[in-house]
Amino acid sequence: MLEKVFEVEEVLKLLEQKKYNELKQYLERINGADFPSIFDEIDEEDVLIVFRLLNKERAAEIFAELDSDLQEKLINSFSDVELKNVVDKLFMDDTVDIIEEMPSNVVKRILKSVDEKDRKIINEILNYPDDSAGSIMTTEFIDLKEDMTVDQAFEKIKKIGLTKETVYNCYVLDTNRKLIGVIDIKDLLVADRAQKIKDLIDENVVTVTTLDDKEDVAKIFDKYDYVALPVVDKEERLVGIVTVDDAIDVMKEEASEDFEIMAAMQPNEEEYFRTSVFKHAKNRILWLLVLMVSSMLTGTIITNYETAFAAIPVLVAFIPMLMDTGGNCGSQTSTLIIRGLATDEIKLKDFFRALWKEIRVALVVGVILSLANGVRILIQYKDMQLAVVVGLTLIVTVVMSKCFGCILPMLAKKLKLDPAIMAAPLITTIVDTCSVLVFFNIAVAIMHISM
Amino acid sequence: MLEKVFEVEEVLKLLEQKKYNELKQYLERINGADFPSIFDEIDEEDVLIVFRLLNKERAAEIFAELDSDLQEKLINSFSDVELKNVVDKLFMDDTVDIIEEMPSNVVKRILKSVDEKDRKIINEILNYPDDSAGSIMTTEFIDLKEDMTVDQAFEKIKKIGLTKETVYNCYVLDTNRKLIGVIDIKDLLVADRAQKIKDLIDENVVTVTTLDDKEDVAKIFDKYDYVALPVVDKEERLVGIVTVDDAIDVMKEEASEDFEIMAAMQPNEEEYFRTSVFKHAKNRILWLLVLMVSSMLTGTIITNYETAFAAIPVLVAFIPMLMDTGGNCGSQTSTLIIRGLATDEIKLKDFFRALWKEIRVALVVGVILSLANGVRILIQYKDMQLAVVVGLTLIVTVVMSKCFGCILPMLAKKLKLDPAIMAAPLITTIVDTCSVLVFFNIAVAIMHISM
Repeated sequence: MLEKVFEVEEVLKLLEQKKYNELKQYLERINGADFPSIFDEIDEEDVLIVFRLLNKERAAEIFAELDSDLQEKLINSFSDVELKNVVDKLFMDDTVDIIEEMPSNVVKRILKSVDEKDRKIINEILNYPDDSAGSIMTTEFIDLKEDMTVDQAFEKIKKIGLTKETVYNCYVLDTNRKLIGVIDIKDLLVADRAQKIKDLIDENVVTVTTLDDKEDVAKIFDKYDYVALPVVDKEERLVGIVTVDDAIDVMKEEASEDFEIMAAMQPNEEEYFRTSVFKHAKNRILWLLVLMVSSMLTGTIITNYETAFAAIPVLVAFIPMLMDTGGNCGSQTSTLIIRGLATDEIKLKDFFRALWKEIRVALVVGVILSLANGVRILIQYKDMQLAVVVGLTLIVTVVMSKCFGCILPMLAKKLKLDPAIMAAPLITTIVDTCSVLVFFNIAVAIMHISM
Repeated sequence: MLEKVFEVEEVLKLLEQKKYNELKQYLERINGADFPSIFDEIDEEDVLIVFRLLNKERAAEIFAELDSDLQEKLINSFSDVELKNVVDKLFMDDTVDIIEEMPSNVVKRILKSVDEKDRKIINEILNYPDDSAGSIMTTEFIDLKEDMTVDQAFEKIKKIGLTKETVYNCYVLDTNRKLIGVIDIKDLLVADRAQKIKDLIDENVVTVTTLDDKEDVAKIFDKYDYVALPVVDKEERLVGIVTVDDAIDVMKEEASEDFEIMAAMQPNEEEYFRTSVFKHAKNRILWLLVLMVSSMLTGTIITNYETAFAAIPVLVAFIPMLMDTGGNCGSQTSTLIIRGLATDEIKLKDFFRALWKEIRVALVVGVILSLANGVRILIQYKDMQLAVVVGLTLIVTVVMSKCFGCILPMLAKKLKLDPAIMAAPLITTIVDTCSVLVFFNIAVAIMHISM
């Protein structure tokens, strides 16, 4: 960390002294991935100066990793030649990612700066649905023929390798560009130079199609420990590859999406600050309205027991505690089940096993909570009957919440819905109503309140 | 998917007919990563039969991916020779992962089956703290010397490549095994054969130390798009590498941990079903007790306003709706902020920018919710005064909840605590108390209730 602070200071110093030659040399020693945080610290005009001092390959590599705001500002300051230099060196998937975030005037400039062939490819990738494998693939990969020797393969890699995103996996195609199999570079390296490619091919190759869901693609990476995955079209021709770094981005996005759904929001792929106030409000209002309406039900139920809390007003004091505890217990369970389903650790066939586990956990937790509560009530109110009523309600509420928390996400999965919508907010609302009902019924029965 | 079902059926058929030779051939055509789901479907004795039909390399590779329960059962059925065959072919990090999950008698058998040198390495890795880079690294990597030629490097890779986990990155060491730099295999492949390694080295190499937090290691993978990261000891000697597949596992674990913390649980690294009922209860009870005690405060506050709800009992009916809505609004914001902080999309210096955004979102959302509520109250109760009281409370509650949801996680981060603990449950409890206070105070003021 200290080193990074030093780097920024050194860059600032050299900029101030206008020692651009020295700065150029210094920049070469900085790791590409550290530039975004350096750019964070320096003025906008200076960013452009620093950027112009970088050599072309590095400039493109670093540009791809900047956030969209800064990319847009830089493009607007670039001359057409500068823009072309950067875009030429970008990998296809990065170009597409950038285009997707830019306003249309910037997109036009970018597309004008790529040649006819690339423009066609970019437009094709842009046409794949947002959540498809096609939208995150790159079209740069190493393709080999099965009658090549290892030596010929190395020759080919030497010639075209630098412009390809990865050489770790090479793909063997037939004359119709259909995918026959894959070769890991390791197998090429340990093979004899005269050996035929066809003897080294791994035909057990997992492929995805351009229209497959990108989240499924990410899951395959997680399961099979690949570094790249071939993408084929409907005719089984290889059209691109997805690399592991893109899969990691999808996994991160997916986790963020689950967090958002579980907090009762519509998922949003845009960055927090790039999303407008009204878009934020729109993403949040729907679930708030739905949950507000359903929690009115709890309120209506309470008014039905008006005589009970008129007779024993202290009852009302326990409503928040019961509602909160029920909600928390339910959300603990639903979170574990939703996570387990997402990572395939829990399967639908484990339903009764999970439910039985949750019931036992609920009994242990419920008894401890009611004992703690009982002690508190006996000290504060010196009322054994009240302690029993609240204690019993707590146990029933905890068991019930944990059962809901277990059943509802699995039911959602069974119905092919996203289990994540069965998270804390929805479970809380359901459990609220039930816990209030249980509470007043137990109170009426034990305390002999006439309704 | 259909293909997979077919695979299982074919395996079952061949097992039943005891056509083991045919089965052996059939198994060779199945992708290694599909075996866990096949084993899920067949009897335990049959798993052992299938396993014995695999060739040694594949058997080890597949074994590493099975879940711990099945691994334990298989080891218990293995002869000493069989166990040695599997363990010999495992990569070091996989062996360590397996050992960490096994009971001590199984661990003893595994350690007995590795040779003296490997046993020393395994014990060293086991001694690294659970959450350190050392605990997830593998000790198998390609090391080169700087005075080698590219040709000599290829010779070395050819000789030792097969026993190394990855050849994608090669590490250049000096005579004291200190790390000088890294070479991507792509750069070796496009270089001339006579070129010196020293001319190809990338000295801008990001390293981690054995004791670095593995979550920080995973973040580096995300930031720099690497496929492997070198791990050095205190003397800067290269002792191992972390590969991207292990980093993905850490990211998944970390996300699960955040989900658990945000649902008011102590994080648990064990699998759901392998965790005992009492361990589950222990992980959940602490936060439930803390939150229960704090929600009693809300109850106590309510009793202070006994005269208010004795005068106008319908007020009580709105408590659940206000509490739930406040809680949901707060958890929406806290989730976005916690996620943004975790992914570095939101930084501490953005505090006022984020707060200002949330206040505006809260006003939009709050006004919509109060209008919806107002309409409902006018229809159901025909009471304008009540509509105004509830509407005003709603707006104040929403703004307040969103402010808490924004401020508390950032405060936690500032205090070097995990922002995730400031999630839904804690915010809900805090917001509950405040919303009830606001509600009764507005009601008392507008409805002229004498306290």
